[in-house]
Amino acid sequence: MPPVYAALVHYPVLDRAGRVIAAALTNLDLHDLARLGRTYGLAGIFVVTPLSDQQEFAHRIVGHWTTGPGADCNPDRRTAMQLVQVVGTIADAAAAVAAREGRRPHLTASGARAQPGALRPAAWRDRCGSSPQLLLFGTAWGLAPEVFAAADHAVEPIAGAAGYNHLSVRCAAAILIDRLLGPPG
Amino acid sequence: MPPVYAALVHYPVLDRAGRVIAAALTNLDLHDLARLGRTYGLAGIFVVTPLSDQQEFAHRIVGHWTTGPGADCNPDRRTAMQLVQVVGTIADAAAAVAAREGRRPHLTASGARAQPGALRPAAWRDRCGSSPQLLLFGTAWGLAPEVFAAADHAVEPIAGAAGYNHLSVRCAAAILIDRLLGPPG
Repeated sequence: MPPVYAALVHYPVLDRAGRVIAAALTNLDLHDLARLGRTYGLAGIFVVTPLSDQQEFAHRIVGHWTTGPGADCNPDRRTAMQLVQVVGTIADAAAAVAAREGRRPHLTASGARAQPGALRPAAWRDRCGSSPQLLLFGTAWGLAPEVFAAADHAVEPIAGAAGYNHLSVRCAAAILIDRLLGPPG
Repeated sequence: MPPVYAALVHYPVLDRAGRVIAAALTNLDLHDLARLGRTYGLAGIFVVTPLSDQQEFAHRIVGHWTTGPGADCNPDRRTAMQLVQVVGTIADAAAAVAAREGRRPHLTASGARAQPGALRPAAWRDRCGSSPQLLLFGTAWGLAPEVFAAADHAVEPIAGAAGYNHLSVRCAAAILIDRLLGPPG
């Protein structure tokens, strides 16, 4: 596989009523995504938020575990949190990948709703080729339609029993990363 | 598949130093497990803690979303939280399953460390037969060895890249439930 990055997107996402918002950060989301990223060998995790106070909050969390008191107390968490970079937009995340890898990444959007042309895991892996990959996970009620429109790919939602499909972004990201990058079932 | 239940176990689990402790509840763990349970069609979710103040805390969370202000505000969360039952011990959870299903469940332990005889997902499904199943997930640093010793089965840990394997219980439960009960990869 080529290098794979993930972005935890707080804007543009939807609220309960389908309006585009900037969602607030959840501390545990950063921890869970960083630990997932380290476990599955991701090349980096982006926390995407345009709000300066939220960026500051993310920097405080990451700093605590990478250079602050948490770094000595929990080295496993340090190596996970070292993957995390805070950026303002999805475009900034893509630009950071391009700067590091020398190639623009493919963007893959994920969400709970069916999307035209959404790929199953095996088809997604076939499309990766040698390009770096950037997986986009939406907080709140999911990525805004404009993110799906601008992405190179979408992946199939996680099918629920009896049509229920309301996972946390933490659990949805875990399942999708395992399906895309984990061992064959 | 027969009915499958899951338990989020707070005792007996290990702390960082390998001592057996009762871990504190994390609010988001209850939400994430309930939503996972509803999405994958689990028959019930047990929150296992012997501490009465922690049981009270769990009842307050579940009550808020099933009969309190959260129930009307978020019906999807209500149907997930309705799966959750608070019990004092793993044995109490198994007894509750036996009372409901008319048969003692098979207990399956999970964790980050390799266990002798641990099953891959397909082998686990083969062993289920028609017995109800109870999946055990440990908080803190994972289920105590006595839980593995008493369980009918263990499932293989989630293999990490370069030996790193420090997922949150939320993400580990999501990945394992998807591997055991999700669609074939």
